[in-house]
Order: sequence, then structure tokens, then C-alpha cells
Amino acid sequence: MLAQRMSLLSGSGTAAAREATKAAAAAGRQIIDLATGEVASPPPPTVRSGAIAAVEDGRNRYTESIGIRPLREAVAGKISVETGQPWEADEIAITAGAKQGLLDAALALLNPGDEVIIVQPCWPTFPAQVLLAGAKPVFVQAEAPTYVPRLGAIRAAVTPSTKAIVVNSPNNPTGAVYDRTTLFDIADLAVTYDLWIISDECYSGFVFTGQQHQSMASVHPGARSRTVVVNAFSKQLAMTGWRLGYLAAPRELIAASKTLQSHTTSNPNVIAQYAALHHLQTGDGSFEHEMHAMVNANRAAGLKILSGLAVAPPPPAQGTFFFYLDLSSLLAALSRDGTAATGDDISRILLEQADVGSVAGGSFGDPNGLRLSFGVPRDQLEPGLTRVVETLNALDGDRTAACCAPQPEPIAQH
Amino acid sequence: MLAQRMSLLSGSGTAAAREATKAAAAAGRQIIDLATGEVASPPPPTVRSGAIAAVEDGRNRYTESIGIRPLREAVAGKISVETGQPWEADEIAITAGAKQGLLDAALALLNPGDEVIIVQPCWPTFPAQVLLAGAKPVFVQAEAPTYVPRLGAIRAAVTPSTKAIVVNSPNNPTGAVYDRTTLFDIADLAVTYDLWIISDECYSGFVFTGQQHQSMASVHPGARSRTVVVNAFSKQLAMTGWRLGYLAAPRELIAASKTLQSHTTSNPNVIAQYAALHHLQTGDGSFEHEMHAMVNANRAAGLKILSGLAVAPPPPAQGTFFFYLDLSSLLAALSRDGTAATGDDISRILLEQADVGSVAGGSFGDPNGLRLSFGVPRDQLEPGLTRVVETLNALDGDRTAACCAPQPEPIAQH
Repeated sequence: MLAQRMSLLSGSGTAAAREATKAAAAAGRQIIDLATGEVASPPPPTVRSGAIAAVEDGRNRYTESIGIRPLREAVAGKISVETGQPWEADEIAITAGAKQGLLDAALALLNPGDEVIIVQPCWPTFPAQVLLAGAKPVFVQAEAPTYVPRLGAIRAAVTPSTKAIVVNSPNNPTGAVYDRTTLFDIADLAVTYDLWIISDECYSGFVFTGQQHQSMASVHPGARSRTVVVNAFSKQLAMTGWRLGYLAAPRELIAASKTLQSHTTSNPNVIAQYAALHHLQTGDGSFEHEMHAMVNANRAAGLKILSGLAVAPPPPAQGTFFFYLDLSSLLAALSRDGTAATGDDISRILLEQADVGSVAGGSFGDPNGLRLSFGVPRDQLEPGLTRVVETLNALDGDRTAACCAPQPEPIAQH
Repeated sequence: MLAQRMSLLSGSGTAAAREATKAAAAAGRQIIDLATGEVASPPPPTVRSGAIAAVEDGRNRYTESIGIRPLREAVAGKISVETGQPWEADEIAITAGAKQGLLDAALALLNPGDEVIIVQPCWPTFPAQVLLAGAKPVFVQAEAPTYVPRLGAIRAAVTPSTKAIVVNSPNNPTGAVYDRTTLFDIADLAVTYDLWIISDECYSGFVFTGQQHQSMASVHPGARSRTVVVNAFSKQLAMTGWRLGYLAAPRELIAASKTLQSHTTSNPNVIAQYAALHHLQTGDGSFEHEMHAMVNANRAAGLKILSGLAVAPPPPAQGTFFFYLDLSSLLAALSRDGTAATGDDISRILLEQADVGSVAGGSFGDPNGLRLSFGVPRDQLEPGLTRVVETLNALDGDRTAACCAPQPEPIAQH
């Protein structure tokens, strides 16, 4: 009875992992949740007081479908500083989280039959939205250990039907941060082949190792007129559940976003809009600074524990708040005796044996990967990662033991 | 450069009328805004205190994409009482306003080539969402003075491609409330031809003249398994800008909605969810009762003023908070001398000459109609409607005078 497009979509794998972890916790187990894509922090006081003031001031009416003009002006000002280029309110749309911004871009740009290049491992919503627009995702693999795609691989994927390329740096799930040369080269290729660039920069506030975030709109003189920058308040201000993001894009795209949002959801929640505006007007940057410092310290502590992994190389973790483990060599070994064939099996083993929630690479189109969040409090991160290291090393030890001991019955693959 | 679907969509006409009215007010004019689709009231104290508590309690994380389970359970309880049938949480999805619920239904049900029957005059988002899903809106006219569609007209529109019919009672813009027999007959036709029913019941709290709202899901034994009921907290709790609605539908449709929302916007704003939950758990019905009484008193006061209209029959105003004027006889006269050809011209004249904002029927596919809100405060409603009556009667008088006086130059049509 349902439309055919529903058979193309599976639910968000990251959401499913989150729910499996919560279900185990709800069953009374002491689960350490390293699955979730958000930092464990309350929003800044400026956001909370701005929200309460908005409620008390009776901000209950509809706003323009792409958000109140003062917020669009404030965002334009913010990214003008960040990119060193002038932006105006008419180049900004406020969205119900980055997801809606990306959906606007997909619906505004893609016709049935169009192709969109997506670098894998990737956030599953990218291909899902391309499919929702009736277009075709074309995957290019980014390989361990850097997970930065090679330009030649991208170029080889371009066809006369290619309409756009999705860029996501800092990258969810891999934690890769693309260097400026890679970003320039991708932009140059987009100019050459007349492609749109859909640039998800939601993790721009989480870049480590002394680098600065590079916005796709500013790395190449030809980029801005063909780039849709998608960003959000969600991650950096710890307000994921409030659903507030934005698009920065050419005016024609913003106008399309306005039309689309007037028919899909109307304006983003008005309380969240005024809360973010209050933060942009009164915040002194200290919350963002402390958030970065906290996550960076978690990163260092986590990498130290993960250095004890005998079965996987260190994760990139240049940006985001995710450790992404390449388990290919462990899985190659384990699959021979049927213990585990994919990251999904490993994720299940970690939940069942180590009480640790994680997201398997399969959610991102990569059977060999595993994503672990370091956005959780330190007193969960350290024991959680310690259990992961012990469990994975033991899996390898079991295999080694098994291979050298008298052969038992093969373990059924599950 | 944009996708072809964008050429099929115009922005929401109601949103455009709202913005034209606001622009005139922003230019310093004393505009009385009868264009807007919301009641001038703050949300109930239960909603406001629930929101503030949610902010203070740090409700900042993602929720399930179709909303927190306690809210889905509370909504199931609410509509179980309203419909006299048992509903469970798995038959409920929380949405970012009714618009998202309707979008979920369109994307979950419609394939390219499918046809959807929509009764006109209609809210413009219905056909826009059908087009977004790649399907085809097929319009059936509901005629003045009742604006209740004839079953024969609906039946005549059914083809082998018909997949669904949209029902909207109480009706925006006309204010019609379909009688139970009409609803039963539509449901019976849906059973006969195996159609889905998409029932927008957002104005269920605004039914007058002693009637009770009838939910489509409960008027016919065969209806519920093929009906998607869409409703919202927006209108009745005066929280339109907060964007919170819900679907009540068969489980397979709710599962599809969960998948879709996980890729389009993620969960509805978490603060709004907890605010509505707090209201459902602690509200005593007095806010809804007072809201209904206030709007009903406005309706009576407004109808009294509109009885002075010499150029249009009384509007239905059985439900919603809209007076919908049938200007066809006035326009037939005015179009002969070029003064005005459509409701759009009348709406423009009212904004320019009477400083009153309205929404032309053209936004709803009806060139002869005009929508005026009676959800505004009484001290705006009465002078606003008085100006409307005076201006429209004078337009007719001008024409009468013009036709009987020496002929002037024809006035250019604009």
C-alpha cells in the first residue's frame, strides 16, 4: 500500500543504534552509550535564558518560513566573520536542523535521473534524501587510514548526469578533516563540470590538532556561487533536540528553500529561533571555547586508551567527536572462524558483552568500521573505551588461541 | 539551475498574504490584520510552564524521530476520548506541525502518476505536497453557499489512478463543517474504490452552532484502516509558531512517518513536546473552553457586522475562525467596468484603501472568494469588518453610480 520510495529508505541507522542502546539501558543494564551524535552538555545559559524570555514574551506566532530576519542577519554576520567574506540575510535560511537544510537543497536542486556523488563512509541521510528527491546517489570510497577521498576517484564518478557532490568536512563518521588543497580541488572539479556542492559543515566547531575549519564557500573563487553550506546550532550549542540549523547559499536557492519550507513544515520552532538569536547577540564565545576544550581533552584521553588496541590502527579524529575504527584486519581474521563478519557484529558484541553502545560502519555504508563518540562525560568515556579495547583485543586473542588450540566446532555466524 | 519541481510550486499564498500585511504595517500604516491563520492569544499557562521547565531541566537531546513516547501515549489517550475508540501510541506520530504530518502522508503513500482528489477552495499546501511527491492533484469544486462538496462530483473525479482523497472539515478557508452523512459517504466511496483518506482536522476545536467535531476515523466502520488523521496543537493552544502536530493512522503509516522524519527533520522541537505533554497531563480544559467561547463570541459579533454587506451572502462560518465571502456577484459586476476581476483585486483594494489585510480566494484556487480571520481581538475585528463592509458596499455603489452617470474613461484593470 505504501509508495515505492519507502522501499528505498531504511530508517536512520544512527537513530536505530541510539534506540538499541537506550533499549538496553531501559532493560536495567548499566550501558555506556558511545553511540549518540551529540555532546553531553546543557545548552549555554544565553540559549536557555533566551528561550525562557521568548516563552514569557509570548513568541507564539508563525514567523517567516525561513526564520525571523534578525536571526538571519545575525547568522550572516557570524559567517561573514568566519569566512572573511560578506554575507547578507537574503543568503541565509533558518531550518529545522541541518537535516531540513540538506533536504531543501536536495528538493531544490535534483531532478529524477540526476546523480549526486557522495563520499563513503557517509551519514545515511545524504543518500536517503537524494533518493527522496528521485535522484541517484553515486558512492566514492574514502579509504583508511585518512578517509580523505582521492580526487581521481571523485573525477572518475562524474557522468553527464552528475548534478552535485556532497562534501562533509569535518566528516561524520570518520572524523577526517579535509585539507584545504583537497577542498580546493573538489571545488575546482565542481567548476569544471558545473556541479553544485552541498557542504555539510555541522561539525565546524570541532576541529583539533591546531587546524582551522575551512568553509567550502571560501576555499575557491568559483565555489560560493555553486555551494550550499549547511550548518547547525545543534552540535556546538548542545541543542540537538531543539532542531535549529541554517543554509548559506545563493539567493535563488534561499528563495527555493523559503517556498519549500512554506509547504513542508513552515518556520523552525520560534522559541529556538529567539534563543539562538539571544545567544548570537549576547554570547561572548566562552561556551564554544569551553566546549571545544572539553571535547579536545576527551579526544586526547580517548586516543591514549585506544593506543592499547592491538587489532586496529589509531582513528583519524581530526575533527567531530567521533573515533572511527578501521576493523578490517580484525574482521578478516574473525570472519574466517565465523566469530564476526562486519562492524554490525562487533557493535552487537560490544553491546552484549561489554555493555557499550556504538554505531556500526554499516550504517555509513562501510562494513569494516565502528563509530564511538567522545562527546560523553569523561567518567563514561574512559571506562567505555577501556572495555572496547579489552573486548576487541580479547576477540583477537580468542581467535589466536582458537587457531593454535585444537579446533572446536565452528561458531555459528550471527 | 533549480529542479523542475520548483516550477510547479508557488510559495504558500496564505504566507504571502501574511507578509504583505506585515509589510504594510512595517511601513507605518495602521493595518488591521485579518489575514493571519492563528488566534490572537498567548498559549495556556500549562504550555508555557511546561516549556520553561523543559528548558530548565535540560531537555536538549534528540528524541525518537516521531516524538517522545509519553506524548504519543497522551495523544492516543486524548483521541481515544474524542473518538470513542481505543488508540495506542504506535498509531501516533508527533510532527513539526500539521504540515509535516501531511507531508509524511503524501511521501509515504503517493507514487508518481497517482492522483489525489482535493476539494476546492483548498489550503494551497495540499496540492503543493501532492506535487512534491510527484503525484497529481485532481480538484473537485465545492460550491457556495455551503461549500460542502457533492458526492457525485467526488465520484466523478475517481479514476483508476486515484490513490487518496483529502478531506478538511472544519474547512480552511471556507469555514464549512461537513455533516456526518457527507463524511460517511466520502468514507464509503473510499472503501468502494480502495482509497486512502487524508483527513486534516486541525480546526477540530473550532466548531460552532452547537455541532460536535466528527473525526473521519470514526464516522464509518471501514474508515479507520485507510485514514490518516492530521491534527495539531497549534491552533487550539495558540502555539502555531512552535510547530507541533500529530498523525493518527494505521501502524504501517506511522512506521513510514518515523523513517521519513528520521531523514527529513529528525524529532519535532523537544521543548514544544514537553510543553504539550505538560498541558495534556495537567490542563483542565478551561483554556480550550475559553478559547472556544472567545472565538464564538467574535463569530457572532462579526456575522452581525457582515449582515450589512449588500454585495455578498453571509459566510458559512460553521467552523474554523474564518469568514469566507463569496464575491462572485460583486466581481461579475466590477469586472465589466474593469474595477476588479478577482478576489486578489479585492484583497489589494482592502489593503490599500481600507488598511485591512485579507487572503484572496485565489490562494485557495477560487477567484471569487475572500478569507477574513475572526481570531483577532474584538477591538480589531469590529473596525476591520466595518471597513470591509463599507469598502465593498461602496465599490458596488461606485459601479451603480458609474453605470447610471455619464460614462467616464474605463479604469485600467490592475
